[in-house]
Amino acid sequence: MKAVYLDNNATTRVDPAVVETMLPFFTEQFGNASSAHAFGASVGGALKTARKQLQELLGAAHDHEIVYTSGGTESNTTAILSAIEALPGRDEIVTSQVEHPSVLQLCQHLEKTGRAKVHYIGVDRLGRLDLDAYRAALSDKVALVSIMWANNETGTIVPVEGLAELAKGVGALFHTDAVQAVGKVPVSLKDSAIDMLSLSGHKLHAPKGVGALYVKRGARFKPLLRGGHQERGRRAGTENIPGVIALGKAAELAILRLADEQGRVKDLRDRLEKAIVQSVPHCFVNGDPHDRLPNTSNIAFEYVEAEAILLHLNRAGIAASSGSACTSGSIEPSHVLLAMSIPVTAAHGAIRFSLSRDNSAEDVERVIEVMPGIIEKLRALSPFGAEGGKETSEFKPQYA
Amino acid sequence: MKAVYLDNNATTRVDPAVVETMLPFFTEQFGNASSAHAFGASVGGALKTARKQLQELLGAAHDHEIVYTSGGTESNTTAILSAIEALPGRDEIVTSQVEHPSVLQLCQHLEKTGRAKVHYIGVDRLGRLDLDAYRAALSDKVALVSIMWANNETGTIVPVEGLAELAKGVGALFHTDAVQAVGKVPVSLKDSAIDMLSLSGHKLHAPKGVGALYVKRGARFKPLLRGGHQERGRRAGTENIPGVIALGKAAELAILRLADEQGRVKDLRDRLEKAIVQSVPHCFVNGDPHDRLPNTSNIAFEYVEAEAILLHLNRAGIAASSGSACTSGSIEPSHVLLAMSIPVTAAHGAIRFSLSRDNSAEDVERVIEVMPGIIEKLRALSPFGAEGGKETSEFKPQYA
Repeated sequence: MKAVYLDNNATTRVDPAVVETMLPFFTEQFGNASSAHAFGASVGGALKTARKQLQELLGAAHDHEIVYTSGGTESNTTAILSAIEALPGRDEIVTSQVEHPSVLQLCQHLEKTGRAKVHYIGVDRLGRLDLDAYRAALSDKVALVSIMWANNETGTIVPVEGLAELAKGVGALFHTDAVQAVGKVPVSLKDSAIDMLSLSGHKLHAPKGVGALYVKRGARFKPLLRGGHQERGRRAGTENIPGVIALGKAAELAILRLADEQGRVKDLRDRLEKAIVQSVPHCFVNGDPHDRLPNTSNIAFEYVEAEAILLHLNRAGIAASSGSACTSGSIEPSHVLLAMSIPVTAAHGAIRFSLSRDNSAEDVERVIEVMPGIIEKLRALSPFGAEGGKETSEFKPQYA
Repeated sequence: MKAVYLDNNATTRVDPAVVETMLPFFTEQFGNASSAHAFGASVGGALKTARKQLQELLGAAHDHEIVYTSGGTESNTTAILSAIEALPGRDEIVTSQVEHPSVLQLCQHLEKTGRAKVHYIGVDRLGRLDLDAYRAALSDKVALVSIMWANNETGTIVPVEGLAELAKGVGALFHTDAVQAVGKVPVSLKDSAIDMLSLSGHKLHAPKGVGALYVKRGARFKPLLRGGHQERGRRAGTENIPGVIALGKAAELAILRLADEQGRVKDLRDRLEKAIVQSVPHCFVNGDPHDRLPNTSNIAFEYVEAEAILLHLNRAGIAASSGSACTSGSIEPSHVLLAMSIPVTAAHGAIRFSLSRDNSAEDVERVIEVMPGIIEKLRALSPFGAEGGKETSEFKPQYA
């Protein structure tokens, strides 16, 4: 039985065409791009092509606005520490309560060590940012706003272009963690007020270990890694050439597939979601129903432990997740769902299904088939479940 | 005509066996190691094996002393910033004048921003550290000593184990940039006083984009990248699984080959060096003749521009370098050679030949064959050369 992989927000399968494109750069064109000889020069052209491909996916005005990094966490860290250092007269950061841990934990660390004051903007029941609180937090003391483009757990899309305009109005830099958005929704940076954007290769069918930080031309910037002149002095260290070339190819494929496949992926996601909500009692979808990534479905199954659901899904050959991979293994319910005021009893039972172009209708039908039985079995085992089995009305959520 | 690659200190060809080992982790076992399901679990065993392989190469006491990074620059940056933050009562750093730019430029930045006072210890004519100056710089104000294990340009080996003992005596942490040493000379950390060690995959036939920082158990440490729990909370971000697995395989091969091949590589290097010094007038070898990496030969050709030599070598299908790849393209002579008091006229004409197990006797003979002609031609074109061609005694270096 073929395994069903519905954890594409954690990581994606590298596209075989991407692997093929990068393979020669391990053993044939293996030179250091900084070297003056033919071995170095031969990779220069391929790097240039890769940079153009990623530029196109981002709709960036210039290819040199792309700074390659080792991934999303390094990109986020670079953006935040850069802003604090580049705008020394300002020591405040505005972010949200539903950011990725790489943003939240760094912000908390900067607060703890007295290097910044941080505003954590809340969200509503659908994960939408509190715009009044956002406007109120903006001032000429703010060095950086860092707000994600799309939430990794719920897929809720944030109107970052508008938020960036507001940040610009007070002279703050605007950074967006777009790790989950790039490749899934159209991105066009050249006419936006977004100064920095993080992305990660392995979320869009490129390998792990490569990512990028877009830095708009003219935006003030301080490097995290110093030394070599690579990336125009903005990120020292020998370039991960196979990774960068892979990311370029993945960007090219994403542009092609964004048009072709996202409708199909969204249809699969919608089919999965509707069928589960209809066939399983006492569950509901988290996130903004109007503005959500086409591939993500976060469903809260009340009075059941997500870890138990995942165990049963895993036995059925289905991979999904609770919360994000970066916080899996934690017994705490998702900080994203708690910020959305999802009751703890439901947040504990939230499962994220995240699809990609690798998924088929058969994958979705398999999940639809097994899900009711898994939830029924688990509820029968739990005190709530046994009771609920007799008196289903007791399951009615107070907030529904 | 097969190209001759003698720039292995810049980067190495990935071993085909390494590529083969990592390939399944792009498209088959592509899960996120942090995920709870089977796709994540399947990579856990391979990661464990890779960590053990690298542990063995380093002679480390525990496999969890290895923190994977994106490469040497990130490892060096992490070590230095960690120490400054982890030992808040101390604000001095001791380093040397011949370190890699990733260490020197970060130290200069920390000085400039008032975060540390830095002692840059000098070296003698052979690149050996001034031990009296080193001892004098050590005090209870020193948070970190960062001294490289082996120099990237000359191959000079530094007695880091002894230096680490002295640092320990004043309660400072000891870090060594061993990017050029690991895989070329035996390393055994478990009984040493070395607290942190940087290495880079692509210098030992693993791919670019992966490296590691060894952090001795119990050594005080603060992460550079925060967020996820990866690497026991010491380096957040989805692991570069193919890269880590490749580095493990490369470590395994390095252990095998260190015994088998380093003698052969050293013989090739010695043959190259002796033949050139004998056949080309007015050139000399830089670095410590008694304690030097077996693969590296840095030869200064007086009154000739290194870039011109490299151009001619490149035309002959031979790749070598001047200085390090990270500073290539610069018109400044090597900071390493200047710190060694090599006269500027000679430092400008210094070429680094760096071999690996991929090199053959034929490679070396090709260089030996073309080198005298290249130097003769270039000297004939230069004012110094034309004069020197008639009056060779004028080439005699003052310091010889």
